[in-house]
This record gives sequence, C-alpha cells and structure tokens, in this order.
Amino acid sequence: MKIAFIGLGNMGAPMARNLLKAGHQLNLFDLNQAVLQELAGLGGSISTSPRAAAEDSELVITMLPAAAHVRSVWLGDDGVLAGIAHGTPAVDCSTIDPQTARDVAAAAARQGVAMADAPVSGGTGGAAAGTLTFMVGASAELFAILQPVLAQMGRNIVHCGEVGTGQIAKICNNLLLGISMIGVSEAMALGDALGIDTKVLAGIINSSTGRCWSSDTYNPWPGVIETAPAARGYTGGFGAELMLKDLGLATEAARQAHQPVVLGAVAQQLYQAMSLRGEGGMDFSAIVNSYRKPT
Amino acid sequence: MKIAFIGLGNMGAPMARNLLKAGHQLNLFDLNQAVLQELAGLGGSISTSPRAAAEDSELVITMLPAAAHVRSVWLGDDGVLAGIAHGTPAVDCSTIDPQTARDVAAAAARQGVAMADAPVSGGTGGAAAGTLTFMVGASAELFAILQPVLAQMGRNIVHCGEVGTGQIAKICNNLLLGISMIGVSEAMALGDALGIDTKVLAGIINSSTGRCWSSDTYNPWPGVIETAPAARGYTGGFGAELMLKDLGLATEAARQAHQPVVLGAVAQQLYQAMSLRGEGGMDFSAIVNSYRKPT
Amino acid sequence: MKIAFIGLGNMGAPMARNLLKAGHQLNLFDLNQAVLQELAGLGGSISTSPRAAAEDSELVITMLPAAAHVRSVWLGDDGVLAGIAHGTPAVDCSTIDPQTARDVAAAAARQGVAMADAPVSGGTGGAAAGTLTFMVGASAELFAILQPVLAQMGRNIVHCGEVGTGQIAKICNNLLLGISMIGVSEAMALGDALGIDTKVLAGIINSSTGRCWSSDTYNPWPGVIETAPAARGYTGGFGAELMLKDLGLATEAARQAHQPVVLGAVAQQLYQAMSLRGEGGMDFSAIVNSYRKPT
Amino acid sequence: MKIAFIGLGNMGAPMARNLLKAGHQLNLFDLNQAVLQELAGLGGSISTSPRAAAEDSELVITMLPAAAHVRSVWLGDDGVLAGIAHGTPAVDCSTIDPQTARDVAAAAARQGVAMADAPVSGGTGGAAAGTLTFMVGASAELFAILQPVLAQMGRNIVHCGEVGTGQIAKICNNLLLGISMIGVSEAMALGDALGIDTKVLAGIINSSTGRCWSSDTYNPWPGVIETAPAARGYTGGFGAELMLKDLGLATEAARQAHQPVVLGAVAQQLYQAMSLRGEGGMDFSAIVNSYRKPT
Repeated sequence: MKIAFIGLGNMGAPMARNLLKAGHQLNLFDLNQAVLQELAGLGGSISTSPRAAAEDSELVITMLPAAAHVRSVWLGDDGVLAGIAHGTPAVDCSTIDPQTARDVAAAAARQGVAMADAPVSGGTGGAAAGTLTFMVGASAELFAILQPVLAQMGRNIVHCGEVGTGQIAKICNNLLLGISMIGVSEAMALGDALGIDTKVLAGIINSSTGRCWSSDTYNPWPGVIETAPAARGYTGGFGAELMLKDLGLATEAARQAHQPVVLGAVAQQLYQAMSLRGEGGMDFSAIVNSYRKPT
Repeated sequence: MKIAFIGLGNMGAPMARNLLKAGHQLNLFDLNQAVLQELAGLGGSISTSPRAAAEDSELVITMLPAAAHVRSVWLGDDGVLAGIAHGTPAVDCSTIDPQTARDVAAAAARQGVAMADAPVSGGTGGAAAGTLTFMVGASAELFAILQPVLAQMGRNIVHCGEVGTGQIAKICNNLLLGISMIGVSEAMALGDALGIDTKVLAGIINSSTGRCWSSDTYNPWPGVIETAPAARGYTGGFGAELMLKDLGLATEAARQAHQPVVLGAVAQQLYQAMSLRGEGGMDFSAIVNSYRKPT
Repeated sequence: MKIAFIGLGNMGAPMARNLLKAGHQLNLFDLNQAVLQELAGLGGSISTSPRAAAEDSELVITMLPAAAHVRSVWLGDDGVLAGIAHGTPAVDCSTIDPQTARDVAAAAARQGVAMADAPVSGGTGGAAAGTLTFMVGASAELFAILQPVLAQMGRNIVHCGEVGTGQIAKICNNLLLGISMIGVSEAMALGDALGIDTKVLAGIINSSTGRCWSSDTYNPWPGVIETAPAARGYTGGFGAELMLKDLGLATEAARQAHQPVVLGAVAQQLYQAMSLRGEGGMDFSAIVNSYRKPT
Repeated sequence: MKIAFIGLGNMGAPMARNLLKAGHQLNLFDLNQAVLQELAGLGGSISTSPRAAAEDSELVITMLPAAAHVRSVWLGDDGVLAGIAHGTPAVDCSTIDPQTARDVAAAAARQGVAMADAPVSGGTGGAAAGTLTFMVGASAELFAILQPVLAQMGRNIVHCGEVGTGQIAKICNNLLLGISMIGVSEAMALGDALGIDTKVLAGIINSSTGRCWSSDTYNPWPGVIETAPAARGYTGGFGAELMLKDLGLATEAARQAHQPVVLGAVAQQLYQAMSLRGEGGMDFSAIVNSYRKPT
C-alpha cells in the first residue's frame, strides 16, 4: 500500500521501518533530514511537505510530539488536508488531548476523510520490536481498514470507540498508572521503614488487594523485580517527563470537563518536583526516591 | 486442642465457630453475654476473664477492635498474661498498630510466652466461610505451631517475618488499596466525562499498565463487574469506616517513623469527607460517587 | 483622549462607562450589540472591528474573557495590530496566561507598539465604583503613560515589572488566596467540630500567626464577619468558577515552568469538586461547606 | 504565691525564671538535675516528685513535652493529683491533644481541683522575654485567678472557652499556619520561576487578598523580610519538627472528630518529607526549598 508517514522521531522512525519491512511504499516527511535520508536508503520516498506526502497516498499516518504539531501538520497551508484525496483513510498516532483529536478529525470529515486517533504504549523498545499497543478511536469501518496496517507495527490493536476515545483511554490509563506507582512507592517505603522485608511485602501485596502492575511487574523498590528499571538505576523505561506530559493532558482534560482528579493532580505535582530536582530523565518509578532518606 | 478465644465480635465469633467445628475445646471470653451463650451451645466453655480463659489453655487467640483493647486484655490485672502458663503459644488477630503489637509481644516474652500478630483480610464473609488470609508476624518456630490452627479459620496463611510484620504487611497493603481505589475512581469518572464507554475503558486498563485489583476485581463503576459492591448499591463489602481505620493506622505509623505518605494522607482525607457526608457505612468503593454529579 | 475600548462584558462595560464619564472619546467594539448601543447612548462611537476601533485611537484598551480572545482580537486579520498606528500605547486588562501576554506584546513590539498587561482585581463592584486594582506589567515609560488613565477606572495602580508580570502577580496572589481560603475553612470547621466558639477562634487566629485576609476580612464561617459573603448565603462575591479559572492559569503556568505547586493543585481540585456538585456559581468561600455535615 | 512548677525544659525553665523574678516561691520538679540546681540557685525549692511539689502549693503549673508525660505527671502514683489540696487552682501549659487535656481536667475536677489548659506560642525567645501568648481553656472564675500569674510570663493572655479550648485554638491556628507557609512558598517560587521580582511580588500580595502573616511578617523567600529566618539561613525560629508535632495533633484530632483536613494532611506530609531529608531542625519556612532547584 502507498502510505504517507509523517513524523519520524524516536517513535515514528522505527514504526516507519516496520512498514517498509512489511513491503509498503512510504512517502516520508519530517524536518530532520538525517532520518529522512536513512529511511530513503531503506526504500522510502522523501516528500517536501505533509501536503505532498498525502497527495498520492492510500493511507496517511502521523506520529508527532504534541497537539500544536498535529494542528499544523494537518490543518496548515501545506498540511495533509490540503493534499489528501477524498475518501483516503487517515490516522494520527500522537499522544495529544482528546479535543484536538476530535477537532482535527472533524476538519478531515468536512472534506470526506475519515480519521482515527491511535496513540500507542510500549515505548521505543516496542516501536522497534513491532509490539506496540494501539488504542484506536475510529468508526467500525475505519478500524477494520486500519487494523491490518497497525498490526504490522504493534501486537495489541484495541478499538476504544469513536474518534477521540483512543486518547481518552490512554490518558485515563496513565493517570491511574501515575497514581499507582506513587501508591506502591509509599507502601514499599513505609514497610521498609517499619521493618518488613521488602521482597516479602511485595509478595504479599501481589497476592492481595493491593496487587497492581506497578507492584508485580514494575516494582520501584530495588531488588524486588529483576527486569524492572529499579534494578538498573532507573534507566531505560518510561521517563518521568513523559509521565508528566500525560498527567498534564489528563488534568487539563479534567479541568475542561469540570471533573476533579485529586490524587492525579497531587501525583502530577510530585513528578513535577522530581523534574525540578533534575531527575526528569529517569524512569518514572524513581519517584520512590522521594520517599527514601537521601544517601 | 484446648484454646482460649477472646473477643467474639463480627469477626471473632465466626472464627471461634470454625474452631469448634474442627473439634477444639474453647475457653471463651467476651463482654457480650448473648454471643457467649450461643457459642456455649455449640460446645464452648465460658470464662469469667481473659486470665481465667488463658489459665488452662494450650493456645491463646485474641480478636479485638483496637489497640486499647489489646493492651487491656493482655496486660490488665485480669488479663491473659496474668493467667497464661510459661511456654504457651499465643496469637493476636486484631488489626492494630505495629508498635503495640511489638510492645505486647515483648511483655509476653518477658514471661516466657511466644506471641504472634496475625491480622486478617477477607471480612465477615471470609470469617464465616473459613477463607480468611492471615498475615503472620512470628518466629519460624511459632509460625509452624500456629499454621495448622489458623488454617482451620483461613485459606491463606502468610509468614511475614518477626512479630509486628503481620500488622505492617496489612497496613501497607491497605494503604495502597485505599489509594488505588481512588485512582481507579478518578480514571473511570474522567473517562466517562470525556465520553468513552466505561466497560471498554475498564477492559483496556485491565490489560494495560493501570491494571489493579481495584479495577479488575472490584471496579467501583456500576455495570463493570457484576460481583462487585458497585453492582449492589455499594453494600456488603469493606466499609469505608474500616478503610479509614486502616489508613489511620498507616499514616500514624508513618508519622512515628518520620516517613511521608502523601497520596495515602490525601486518600485518608477523602474517605474522611465521605464519612462526614454520612456515607461511612457504604463499601469503600463508593468513593467513586465523590467524582460523579450528584443525582 | 481618543481611546479604543474592546471587550464590553461584565467588567469591560462599567470600565468603559468610567472612561466616558472622565471625558474621553471612545471607539467601542464588542460582539454584543445591546451593550454597544447602551454605551453609544453615553457618547461612545461604535466600531465595526478591533482594527477599525484601533485605527484612529491614541490608546488601545482590551478586556476579554480568555487568551484565545486576546490572540484573535490582537492578531487576527481584522485585529488591533492590523489597524493601530506605530507608537500608539496599548494595554490588555484581561486575565490570561503570562506567556500569551508576552507573545502578543512581542508581536505588537515588532510593529512599534508598546503594550502592557494589566489584569485587575476588585470584581464587578470595583469596576462600577472605579476602585479596581490594576497589576501592570510594562516598561517604566509605558507605565507612566497608562497610569493616569487606569487611575480613572481604579484606585490602586501597581507597577509589577516588564510586560507579563501583571499576569504573574495576579495568578501568584490568587494561587495563595485559593489555598488560604481552604486553610481557613479547615481550621474553622475543625475548631467547630472540636468545640470552640468560632468567633473566638477567628479572633485568636486574626491576632496570631494564622492571620490572613481569608480569615480577618472574608471569613467563610457564617456569623464571623458581617460583611462577608458567608453572611449572605455565599452570594455576590468572587465566584468559585473564577477562582477555578485563576488556579487553572496558575497550575498551567507552573507546569510550563516545571515548578511544583502541590497545595495549589489540591486546592484547584477541591474547587473543581465544588463545581461538579453544581456550586460553582457561589462565592468561593462556600468551599467551607465541603467541611461541614450536609444539612 | 507558692507555686509548684513541673517541667523545666527549653520552655519551662525560662518561664519559671520569670516567676522567680516576679517574687513567687517555687516548688520545682524535673528529671534534669542540672536545671533544678540552676533554678535552686535563683531561689527555687527542689521537690522529689510532682506529688511533693503540689502538696503545699497554692497553684500548680506544668509544662511538658507530650500527652504521655502530662498523664503520668498528673495521674501517676506520685503525680500532682496525689498531692494537691482540694480547691487549688491548676494549669497545664503543654501542647497536647484536646482530649487528653479534657480527660486530665476531669480527673482533677473529681477531687475538687479546677484545672485549665494553656498552651503557648512565642517560642523560647518569648519564654525568656516574658512575651508569650497563652491560649487558655478554663472557666471564667479560674481564668480570673490564672490571668495575673500568666501575665508575668506572657504578654497576651487569651480566654478561649472551657477547658480543652486552649489546645483547640492552638492546633487550629497552627494547622492554618502550616498551610499558609506552604501556600506562600508556592506563590513566591512560582513568581520567581515565571520572572517577577520577589520583593515586588511580596509587596503586591501583602496589600492584596493573599496577605497573611507567613508573607508579610515571616516570608520564606530570602531577601524579602530582613528579620525573618529566611534572612539567616532558616535558623532560630519555629522548627519544622515542632510544626510537624502540631500538625500531627491537628490531623489526629480531626480523625477522631471525623472531620476532613485535606490541605492540612498534605502540609503535614510535605514537612514530613522535609524531616526525612534531614532538614527537620531548620525553621519551618525552609519548606520553600522544596520548591527551588537544588543548588
């Protein structure tokens, strides 16, 4: 299939590589010339604008850092909607606020383009390995069209509802994740301070009502889970700055919906404090260090 | 075995019944005459004081509402330690602060009595069915002695470490549980307000990084889990007042240990606000109503 | 002086009236025809666009609801900057984020227009009475030019520093105000629950280290201050929705600056919960009702 | 007057010195022999127990670290109530929970002794200078008796209501103080991060609705108030550990009263985190450092 792929950052570039491997023809656009050259070497064609990339494509995929980029890549003078043909399916894989996702999709619909939002989880490792989870907001028809292509970049392709619900699913999950990780940190640090063995404590929690992914798979206490970032100095996982971005999207969406998120807001501030201390580049589970005596 | 069983409230009475069924002889003590008469009818003997109950028993078990009762039943003039024979094993199943558990065990040790703390989870339903979880703080020797008897009242008998660690395990788990339940409530209510189907959202969370017992087993949103209290008007589960008691133990233990528990403290206050509104008797998952428009 | 006045809502209309009374000629613009007609009856001239209003004015003043309006009124095709003459002083009195204030002023500067931000406090009462406080971010030269005109609409004209600092001063003050009001609410409600007379308690606080405007001037407990909204059913003061708007600006500015505001974020969520319960139209001091048994 | 003075720590010793200077005869008791000897050198008589000190005194004053000491000094076998004569007025100046204050006073009343609670503020400096504030819970009759003596140790003697209300007034004021100080810290740090001059910001807050003692008298930002601890490295004021003690009393009293204190609980945890970092000995306004980049 001829696919326009726009946005070739840490996530987009490996995703595009997987589509090339799967045999698709790619019209590529990014501001970074080096990555364009590299992907051209793998068979991709370089376009001069999102508009040009979209013009003769059968599917448009974008993967961008934030809502402002999505608006400009889709709605700008040289944007996707200036070039895309009526009836072409389209999907934005960026993590942005649900309202922008809906606004851009509404603009696309006005010119006969069905557009989905499909933010991912799984990180750069999952993007490279083709094991991402896609949370897709789309009509049933569009989902059926997108599913096989997304499955060439990911393992778990989930239909969340109409456009915008992909973003909603992602920010609600990550809101809970950000809270749970701090909850586990407080429980583990309290247990340690009171004198229980932390491996024993984790074992009890994991078979009881405190059980959660943040404890049984990604426990922040060093020595509990050998494959977790805590075992390697909190490197190489899901950075605290990325968690901050998602909590920012969640609390801002909540504000607009007049919906309180008390623990979510406190969690956001605690990661913010971590960022202020210069630890924003560490894995988000390093929040546990806020609960330990400095060494 | 001849066992002194002291404290026959909502939890203690069904636990004692299970021991009688298992063929033990029980010396019973409680201030409530009605429950004493009922258990005497099942074969138990009524004692006139904790001291008297302990005097000719081979094992002493207590199940009391709070630390003050534990101190008085064990250390009072007519208390267990005034009657118990040197070398008799003993276990307190109350949920209290770890320090009191250690203090009373130390007093017991001074007269040659090895004492464990073994708070339970599973509620009155688990007590009646004999499916409680016991979190046991005891030496390996004492644990080996207690294990078979506790197994006649519960299904999951966990050794947490030395005396006091049973209480620590319980309050750390419930600290996390109280936080997780509010985290799930915020995520579900936000998703609903933003327009995703709540069953779909729960499904995504349950197979993603937000996965936790509060979502996949006890989801607070009505209609998501048919067996959860949310499906029956938030009745019949783990009452908000009990969660408040456990969060109070956790934050107080944290205060004494100079250990911050930020989300735990906020969670405690949110359940406190629920209690102030007169909803303390509802299942603790009804905290989700704080995040929904009043009807 | 010939002044363009754009934005004639609840605040802008009475401010414009005071300028007309002071003898200025006003070029007026708003989307609301009724208010335009009314002010035309008082001597103002109706303009067809912000651009037209600005074209032959010696000073441009805007007073708009939010940042999006400020951007469009100043930067749009028919906006102020399309019509204003090089060298004309300008001031925006809206309460918006500091970054937008700086961005718009930078755009103005690029065409030789010195622009100030000057958000107000004092409410619609202060706007009508001409007793507003203006917090002005401007160069010393521009401040000297604006001061006499602002003084015809307000009593307290404060120079906060360069452009943007007016907004910063306002959101920092209101961040603290939102926190203090909840702090006073918690202290008063706790004192009442524990059994001290609330007037006595307020008196002690007001002469001690808890002293603050939220207690000594605007105490949320009914019966303590006769002139406070608490004495009249929490009507007619500073609405909770307005406090929410300002806390939203503060936490968003904090997020962008990587600056934690823990209590500020919790305060925002507590007013959000008040809004969810349908009480957003009440004075913000009605937050105290979150701490009282429902009646 | 012949006065029993029991408890001669950092606060009690200078208070007793002021009573000796005022010409009273003192029966002194403390466990610290050095301070007893020193005060004996100034004319005091050393007693061998609280009971002995109380036996021939016309007034009993105690000043102790915590509730456990108050219970034991008053109710113990060799305690005040074992020696005090029927009809002797009595006052405890310790800062403890209101319930213990009421319990001990009730025990005193049962043997014809009218007892007041009168916690102080003003610190060791105020104790030495005789400028303390006493918050007195007592009947009007007892207050009239105590007032002249307390006035020899303090400047501001406030009658708060019946016994227990002195403690309530103190913990409610300090709850608010602990919150306000963090509120000011967040506002000042945010303003600084956004680019306003902090002295200008403090000036605006101090003449606006954010005005409070924590800003206008004790501002935590260095360089704003020359006499505040911030100007001398956060030494010599009201230590964070003392604030933690008072917030612990407040949240525990709130828990017992089923009264939520959300911001108060978060404040307590933030000072707790400060204590964990080893900064508990600094003035409580050093909490502002939690909001600044580490240097």
